[in-house]
Amino acid sequence: MSKTAIFPEPKSDAESEEGTVFAPKFDAHGLVPVVATSATTGEVLMFAYMNEEALARTIETGEAHYWSRSRASLWRKGEVSGNCQRVVEMRTDCDQDAIWLKVETAGAAACHTGRRSCFYRAIPVGASPGGGVSLSFVDAERQFDPEAVYRHAGAAKGTLKSSE
Amino acid sequence: MSKTAIFPEPKSDAESEEGTVFAPKFDAHGLVPVVATSATTGEVLMFAYMNEEALARTIETGEAHYWSRSRASLWRKGEVSGNCQRVVEMRTDCDQDAIWLKVETAGAAACHTGRRSCFYRAIPVGASPGGGVSLSFVDAERQFDPEAVYRHAGAAKGTLKSSE
Repeated sequence: MSKTAIFPEPKSDAESEEGTVFAPKFDAHGLVPVVATSATTGEVLMFAYMNEEALARTIETGEAHYWSRSRASLWRKGEVSGNCQRVVEMRTDCDQDAIWLKVETAGAAACHTGRRSCFYRAIPVGASPGGGVSLSFVDAERQFDPEAVYRHAGAAKGTLKSSE
Repeated sequence: MSKTAIFPEPKSDAESEEGTVFAPKFDAHGLVPVVATSATTGEVLMFAYMNEEALARTIETGEAHYWSRSRASLWRKGEVSGNCQRVVEMRTDCDQDAIWLKVETAGAAACHTGRRSCFYRAIPVGASPGGGVSLSFVDAERQFDPEAVYRHAGAAKGTLKSSE
């Protein structure tokens, strides 16, 4: 677990679970996993990570900030695409090692592929996966053209994930 | 990234994002993060991890299985508490390194503390976190008494996380 400067050191299990002191647990890479859901529809929009700074900026500004592992940099959601996320509610879990954001998205999309959610494919349930699992597209309509949106930003193809 | 036996090797970015072959990306520990939401209310119930076997069993049985990092073992959700999760829908994200489960819980609780969701505390937004962040309890009513439920299972205190 990484030592942090802004937030207090993680507490005992009992204090983490039943206390009111926010003392988040960052993993060995200094990151905490984050789930963002739509405050309107409740659907899961994306899954990403925050480092200490991204977490602090999100709390302070009410705008979702993440840590881009592919680019190794702080990332204000929507800084390229315009699909910013205003935090409507923010929660932590029992052991304070995960974050849930309920957000309103400025644009229609949360995914860098142009979809509303990153979770636009269903995994079929009920058969052995040994023979191969075929995904089906659901809610997969593009809200924007990723080529058009990202090419003007000078962003190198393949370095953008989860709708930077 | 770990090599797996059941699922195919991860594909190129383009194939991962736009293909129908499920080729999940496991992290260096052989795990993939999972968000479980209530199929009824849409709320986020818990955040956990699956290894390859947990993912395969979940797909095959339609019952949520996870990998317990604290106990280093496969864990069928609810095997101790009875709060099993039937998978109503299962999705993967754009780069196939996260899973979203919509579930129906057999009992009323998803959290090992007895709450419906593990995310029973809100983080206030809009002030600098430097001076300390005080969590507030929301939707935090206990649906069961964790002491009563887990002590009969011979489970060592402190080794159960996220509602085993």
